[in-house]
Amino acid sequence: MKREMRALLKSQPTRGAEIASVAIPEPGYGEVLVKIKATSICGTDLHIYQWDEWASSSMKLPRIFGHEFAGEISEIGDGVREAKPGEYVSAETHFVCGRCLQCRTGQAHVCRFTKILGIDVDGVFAEYAVIPESNLIRCHRSIPPDIASVQEPFGNAVHSVFADDILGATVAVFGCGPIGLFSVGLAATYGARSVIAIEPHDYRRELARKMGAVDTLNPEQVDVVDTILSLTADKGGVDVVLEMSGNEKAIAQAFRVLRPGGWISLLGIPHRKVELDLSRDVIFKGARVYGIVGRRMYESWHRTQGILSSGRLDITPIVTHTFPLDKFEEGFSLIEAGGCGKVVLTP
Amino acid sequence: MKREMRALLKSQPTRGAEIASVAIPEPGYGEVLVKIKATSICGTDLHIYQWDEWASSSMKLPRIFGHEFAGEISEIGDGVREAKPGEYVSAETHFVCGRCLQCRTGQAHVCRFTKILGIDVDGVFAEYAVIPESNLIRCHRSIPPDIASVQEPFGNAVHSVFADDILGATVAVFGCGPIGLFSVGLAATYGARSVIAIEPHDYRRELARKMGAVDTLNPEQVDVVDTILSLTADKGGVDVVLEMSGNEKAIAQAFRVLRPGGWISLLGIPHRKVELDLSRDVIFKGARVYGIVGRRMYESWHRTQGILSSGRLDITPIVTHTFPLDKFEEGFSLIEAGGCGKVVLTP
Amino acid sequence: MKREMRALLKSQPTRGAEIASVAIPEPGYGEVLVKIKATSICGTDLHIYQWDEWASSSMKLPRIFGHEFAGEISEIGDGVREAKPGEYVSAETHFVCGRCLQCRTGQAHVCRFTKILGIDVDGVFAEYAVIPESNLIRCHRSIPPDIASVQEPFGNAVHSVFADDILGATVAVFGCGPIGLFSVGLAATYGARSVIAIEPHDYRRELARKMGAVDTLNPEQVDVVDTILSLTADKGGVDVVLEMSGNEKAIAQAFRVLRPGGWISLLGIPHRKVELDLSRDVIFKGARVYGIVGRRMYESWHRTQGILSSGRLDITPIVTHTFPLDKFEEGFSLIEAGGCGKVVLTP
Amino acid sequence: MKREMRALLKSQPTRGAEIASVAIPEPGYGEVLVKIKATSICGTDLHIYQWDEWASSSMKLPRIFGHEFAGEISEIGDGVREAKPGEYVSAETHFVCGRCLQCRTGQAHVCRFTKILGIDVDGVFAEYAVIPESNLIRCHRSIPPDIASVQEPFGNAVHSVFADDILGATVAVFGCGPIGLFSVGLAATYGARSVIAIEPHDYRRELARKMGAVDTLNPEQVDVVDTILSLTADKGGVDVVLEMSGNEKAIAQAFRVLRPGGWISLLGIPHRKVELDLSRDVIFKGARVYGIVGRRMYESWHRTQGILSSGRLDITPIVTHTFPLDKFEEGFSLIEAGGCGKVVLTP
Repeated sequence: MKREMRALLKSQPTRGAEIASVAIPEPGYGEVLVKIKATSICGTDLHIYQWDEWASSSMKLPRIFGHEFAGEISEIGDGVREAKPGEYVSAETHFVCGRCLQCRTGQAHVCRFTKILGIDVDGVFAEYAVIPESNLIRCHRSIPPDIASVQEPFGNAVHSVFADDILGATVAVFGCGPIGLFSVGLAATYGARSVIAIEPHDYRRELARKMGAVDTLNPEQVDVVDTILSLTADKGGVDVVLEMSGNEKAIAQAFRVLRPGGWISLLGIPHRKVELDLSRDVIFKGARVYGIVGRRMYESWHRTQGILSSGRLDITPIVTHTFPLDKFEEGFSLIEAGGCGKVVLTP
Repeated sequence: MKREMRALLKSQPTRGAEIASVAIPEPGYGEVLVKIKATSICGTDLHIYQWDEWASSSMKLPRIFGHEFAGEISEIGDGVREAKPGEYVSAETHFVCGRCLQCRTGQAHVCRFTKILGIDVDGVFAEYAVIPESNLIRCHRSIPPDIASVQEPFGNAVHSVFADDILGATVAVFGCGPIGLFSVGLAATYGARSVIAIEPHDYRRELARKMGAVDTLNPEQVDVVDTILSLTADKGGVDVVLEMSGNEKAIAQAFRVLRPGGWISLLGIPHRKVELDLSRDVIFKGARVYGIVGRRMYESWHRTQGILSSGRLDITPIVTHTFPLDKFEEGFSLIEAGGCGKVVLTP
Repeated sequence: MKREMRALLKSQPTRGAEIASVAIPEPGYGEVLVKIKATSICGTDLHIYQWDEWASSSMKLPRIFGHEFAGEISEIGDGVREAKPGEYVSAETHFVCGRCLQCRTGQAHVCRFTKILGIDVDGVFAEYAVIPESNLIRCHRSIPPDIASVQEPFGNAVHSVFADDILGATVAVFGCGPIGLFSVGLAATYGARSVIAIEPHDYRRELARKMGAVDTLNPEQVDVVDTILSLTADKGGVDVVLEMSGNEKAIAQAFRVLRPGGWISLLGIPHRKVELDLSRDVIFKGARVYGIVGRRMYESWHRTQGILSSGRLDITPIVTHTFPLDKFEEGFSLIEAGGCGKVVLTP
Repeated sequence: MKREMRALLKSQPTRGAEIASVAIPEPGYGEVLVKIKATSICGTDLHIYQWDEWASSSMKLPRIFGHEFAGEISEIGDGVREAKPGEYVSAETHFVCGRCLQCRTGQAHVCRFTKILGIDVDGVFAEYAVIPESNLIRCHRSIPPDIASVQEPFGNAVHSVFADDILGATVAVFGCGPIGLFSVGLAATYGARSVIAIEPHDYRRELARKMGAVDTLNPEQVDVVDTILSLTADKGGVDVVLEMSGNEKAIAQAFRVLRPGGWISLLGIPHRKVELDLSRDVIFKGARVYGIVGRRMYESWHRTQGILSSGRLDITPIVTHTFPLDKFEEGFSLIEAGGCGKVVLTP
C-alpha cells in the first residue's frame, strides 16, 4: 500500500483550508483504516473552514477535518473482533468513553468525554481515515456512497423528529438546511398530518416542497407567527416544532407557534443567548422541549437504516451537488450562498 | 320527520337477523340523532349474526346491532352543547362512565362500565341511531361515508400498531381481516423496515401485498416459525408482532417469532385459553406484551384523522364490498367465506 | 338553609380585599354546593391580594377568590349523577371544556378554554362555593381538612417531580415555597439519591431540611452554581432540576447546573422574559425541559391520593399556620414576609 | 501471590457440589482478578446444585458456579483502562457481546450472545474470580460486602418494580423469595399506595410484612383471587402485579387479579407452559405485560446504587444468613426449606 494520501488540511487559524499530502494513518488497537468513497460537508465543517469564534476555541491545528463519510475498510488493527477488509461502512462520528454515567445509561450522545471525528481527531476529508471498530456502521451495497455518507446527519434528523410523538401532528420545521430538509421528509412521510417549512432561501423552500412540506413560508416576506397560528387556529398552534435554524428570531417564533401541550426539538445552534417568554411559551403551555445533539447510540442508526431500506422516503433530492475533494472551495462557497442541499466531496 | 325506520334487528337467539320497521329513537339529554349514511360490518357483528357462545352470553334481545358508521346529525337533544343538525360525523362506539379510575386516568377504553353501541344499546344497522354528543367525531366532507365508517376499526389498528415503537422495525402481522389489513398498511407506511403478513385466505394475502406487505405467508402451506426466523436471523426474530387473528396456533407462533427485546400487540380474541411458553417467549426475551381493546379516547381518533387527512395511506383497497342494508345476508356470507376486506352496508 | 354567607371579596382594583356578606350561590346543572371546611392560600391569591400587573390583566371584579379547599357537599344541582350531600371533598380547580383537542388527548390541564376557580368564577374564600361534579375529588375522612385542602398544590408538585424519571437521581429544587417544599419531600421520599434545596429564607430552608433535603443553599450567601457542580462533579451536574421559584437568576442557575442528559421541570412563573444559553444548557446537554402547569387530570390526583394514603410522606410540617377567614390579613402578611410554609384559612 | 485457591466446584452431573483446590485464574485482555469478600446464593445456583433439567441442559461441567458477589480487585490484565488494584467492586453478571442489535439499542440484558458468570464461565463461589472491566460496578465502602453482593438480584427487583409506573398504585407481589422481598420493599417505599404479598412460607410472609407489605396472604389458606379482588373492588383489581414465583397457579392468579389498564412484570420462571385466559386477562383489560430478565445495563445499577445510598430502604432484614463457603451445604439446605431470605457465603 502506498504511504501518502491527499487530505484537506486545516493548518492555519484563518479562513480556508488546503489540500496536502500527508502520511496515511495507521489503525491502533480496536481500530480500522477506511478508504473514503464519499464524504459530505456539515455545517460544522463550514465553521471550521470560515474559522469562526466557535472553531477557534474548539480545535487545535493542524487537523484534517470532515466527519460524514462512507467507505471501505482497507486495514484492520489489533484487537478488532469482527470487521473485515472490504466491508462497506459509515460510522457514528462521536467517539465516546463508554464508562461514564451517560454512556452507561443510554445517553452516550452526551458523553462528556466525547472526541469528535474531524475536530478532536483527524477526519475524513481525505483518502483514508482511522475509525474505531465500535463506531462502524455496516451499509448495504444498494445504498450509494453519497447517501451512505449523509446517513450521519440524517440520523440527527431522525433523532429530532422522533424525539416524541408525531403521529397525526401538524409540524413546523424552522430552517431548511440539509438536516431541516431531512426532517421535512421524515415528518411528512412518517406520520405528520401536514408540514409547514420556514426558510428564507428560495432554493431550499423549493426542496422542502419536494420533500413533502404542504406550506413553505419565507420569513422575510410573511409574518411567520400570524400565518402559522391562522393555519392551526383550532388547536392554538402546531403540535410539533423542529427548530433546525439556530437563528434567534426563528427560535422565538418557534416557541410562539407551539400549541399548548405540544413539543419542540431544538437542534440548530444559536451563537448567542436567546430571550424566551418561558411563562407564556413553555410553562403555561405545558410544553416539552428537547435539546438534540448527535444521534442516539445506536437507536438513531437502527432507525435510519430501517427507514432507508424501507424505500418509503427518497432522500436523493437533498443531495444536490458532488465535487471532487480538490474542488472543496466550490463546495464551501455554494453552501455559504445557500443554493444547495447537501454537498458531497469525493476523494 | 317520519316516525318509522328500517333496521336490522336481532330478535331471536338463533343464527340470522331480520329487517324490521321500528320507531325512530329520540335523542335524550346530551344526545343526538344521526341519519346513517354508511355502516360497516365488524367481526363482532358476525358473532351476533351467528349467535355464538360469546354473543348469547353478552347481549339481550331484541337489539338493533351494528356500531361502525358515518352519517349526518338530524336532531339534537336537550343539553347538547355544540353539535348541530347537518354535521357529518362518525363516533367512538364505547360509551364510558367518565368517572371511574380508568376514565379519569387516560384509560377510558377499558372503563368497566362501558356500554357498547349495537350490543348494550341499539346500534347503527338502521336508518337512524342515537349517539351521545361526547362520543361524536366530526369528519371532513372529503372523506366518503364508507371510509368515514371504517375509521372506528381503523382506530383499533392505529391503537395496535403504535402501542410502542415501530420505526425501522421488521413487523409480522398475524391475520389479515380488515383490522389486520389496516395494520399492514399502517406499519408499512409509517415506519416499518418491512412487513410480513400471515394469512390463510388467498384473497386477503393479496390485499396484504397491496397494502405493503413484503412477505405474505400462507400458514397452511409453509412453516411460519421457520420462515420468519430465517428471514430475521440477524436479530433472532421480528422486532414487532401484531396478533390480529385470535387463532390459538397463530398466537403461539406469534410469541415464538418475536425477537429478544421485541414487543407484541394482542388484538385478536381467542375463544379458549392459550398455552404459552412464558419463560422462553416472554421472560427470557424481555418482551413487552400489550392487550389492545378499542381505541384510546381520543388519541387514537386524533391520530386516525391526521393519518387519513395526510393522504399517505390509501385504505380504499380494504373496503372491498358495499351492499344495501337489505342485502345484509350477502354481506355476512361473504365475510364467513373470507373472500373480502371490509364490507359496508348502506341503509 | 340560611341565604347569606361571609366571603373574602376582591371588589376594588387596589391592594387588599374585604370580608363581605353575599348570597349563597346555587348549584346549576351538574354542579354541587360545598360547605368549605378549610381553604389554603396560593401564590396566585397573593397576586390577587396585591393586585399586581398579572392580576389586573387577568380578572374582573368583584370576585370571591381562593381555590384550594376541602369541604362537605351540602346541596346538589340537577343532573348530578353520583355526588351526595355530606360527602367530604376537594376539587380540581381547573374547569375545562372537555371537547378540545387537548381535553380529548390527555392534556386537559392546558385546555385553552379553562376557567379557574377563584379567578374566572367565584372561589372558595367563603363559607360556601359551587363546584362542578366532574371536578370533585372524594377524600378519606382520615385526612384532616387542612391537608385535604393542600392536595391541590401538592398535586402540582406531584406533576413536577414525576414528569420524568427520578429514581436514583440527584435533584436540585430551586425555591422552597409550599410547592417547592412538597417537591423536596416527594423527591427525597420517592427515589432521589439526594436533594439539594436552594432558598434564601432561613425558615424555608429549615423546612426543606425537615422534608429531606441533604444540602440546603442560601443563594444570597453561596455561589449556587459552583457549589452544586462541585457536589456533582462525577456526572457534570444534577440529574434533575425542579424550578419552583420563578426567579430569573435562579432559572439561569437551574439550567446551568443540569447535567448532560438531565431533565428540568419549570413550574415557577417568571414575570419577564428570561435569557438562556440554549446551546450550552439545553442543546449540547440533550436536556429535556418540561413546562408544568396545574395537575394532570386526573393522574396527578390519583397519585396524590395514593401517596397521602400510603403514609410514607408526612406533609403536615409544611402546613405551618392556620387562621380564621376573618384574619386573612395576617395570613397574607405572613406569606409576604416568607416566614411560613402553607397558610390555611378556616371560614 | 499464591497460585491455588479454594472454590465450590460442580464437577458431577448429580445433586451436590464440592470444595476443591484449583488454580487461581489469570485475567485476560480487559479483565481483572477479584478477591471475593462475599457471594450470595441465587435460585439459579440452587438449580445447579440440585442439577435439575434446566441445569443439565444449560451448562457444561466442571464449572465453578455462583455469580453474585462483592470483592476487591487484586490484579489487572492488559488493556484495562481505569480499574485499579484495591478497588471495592461488584459486577453485572451478564457478559454481553456489545455489538448485536440488542446491545446497541439499550437491550443488552437480552443480548443473544450473553455469557453468564458461573454458568458459561467460571463464577464466584471461590476465593478469586476473573471479571471483564466493562462489567465492574464500583461500590462505596460504606456498603458492607454482603449487601454489595446482593445488589445484583436487588437490581432484578429494581428492573421489575420500575418497569412501568407504580406511583399511588396498589401492588400485588406473588412469591417472596429474595427478589420478591426486595420488590415488596421497593414498591412499599417508592410509591405504592399499598402492597399485598402472596407467599406460602410463614417465615417469608413475616419478612414481607417487615419490608412493608400491608396484606400478606397464604395461598394455601385463603382464596387469593377473591381476597385481592375484594380488597380492590373500586377499580376491579390491583394496579400492578409483580410475579416473582414462577408458580403456574400463582401466574394464573396474578393475571386474574390485575385491574383493567394495569400492568404486570413477569420475573419468576415457570418450568412448564402456562395456560392463560388472554382474552379476559390481557386483551379486554388492555394490560401491559413485561418479561423481566437481568438488569438494564446499566440503568438498573444506577438506580440500585442511588436507592441504596439514599438510605430510605433498609434491605438488611432480607439478608438473613451468612455461612463460610465450606458450609455451603447448610446454605443450600436452608434455601430448599424456605426458612430464609438471602443466604450469603464468605470464601
